Amino acid sequence: MSKPALGTTTITQVGIIVGDIEAKARAWSQILGLPMPEIVITDTVDIAQSEYQGQRSTARANLAFFHMGQVDVELIEPIGEPSTWKDQLDRHGDSLHHIAFQIQGMQEKVAYLDSRGVPLVQRGEYTGGRYAYVDGGAQLGCILELLEND
Amino acid sequence: MSKPALGTTTITQVGIIVGDIEAKARAWSQILGLPMPEIVITDTVDIAQSEYQGQRSTARANLAFFHMGQVDVELIEPIGEPSTWKDQLDRHGDSLHHIAFQIQGMQEKVAYLDSRGVPLVQRGEYTGGRYAYVDGGAQLGCILELLEND
Repeated sequence: MSKPALGTTTITQVGIIVGDIEAKARAWSQILGLPMPEIVITDTVDIAQSEYQGQRSTARANLAFFHMGQVDVELIEPIGEPSTWKDQLDRHGDSLHHIAFQIQGMQEKVAYLDSRGVPLVQRGEYTGGRYAYVDGGAQLGCILELLEND
Repeated sequence: MSKPALGTTTITQVGIIVGDIEAKARAWSQILGLPMPEIVITDTVDIAQSEYQGQRSTARANLAFFHMGQVDVELIEPIGEPSTWKDQLDRHGDSLHHIAFQIQGMQEKVAYLDSRGVPLVQRGEYTGGRYAYVDGGAQLGCILELLEND
């Protein structure tokens, strides 16, 4: 036992892959009685510089966020491919995709996790920060997302 | 838009189905630097009174909890069948299974969700409370768990 390897133990986000974000966002809002969120699209490839399995990808996604206490529920509708989002939609349909941590030191955290059998699967930039999905399927049972804001 | 239909918008738990809870709990502990949790087994059927799809089930599960801020990560290894846990393991392998809310008024919340196309899939008792899984797959993109403590 050591200190938290990611520098945090606080989950800040749960991601759900959906095929139809308009319908799912409306259902979350109406069934659970939550404010209907704006649906936003991820940045274009020149800003996002997305990489999937080490290769540049033009894939994007539509996103909608519900604020549920400490945790945001993030609905994700894949646009184009390849991406971890599209991969999961094809393999499992609408389904929970990841849990996210807010971290600092993206490069060292990703390298550490890779050394422990949790490899990088997708990364990209967004205005004000960057993200990385690491595939914890074999070790942890799910995908983790690391988020680093500047 | 109305008030939160479940009486809360706070997610308290994320569940992950795993085929080998010893290995996965050790990996969560060692890779993420978290205390190794005790692995506990759900109550026997006479206490749990588990029902899956409206029929009594003798299925149980091994559980391990990691405290991650407001949210617990719950590892779940199915024992026997039928259960939503075993169903997911068979269909999707190790994977995220549900997000949970702490609620009051189980019967009325379950009836409300059923009326909105989110049907009960499994329910049971535990010492000090009860749980229900509702299948939000079609409407919300994932299973929800309702937890009610006395």
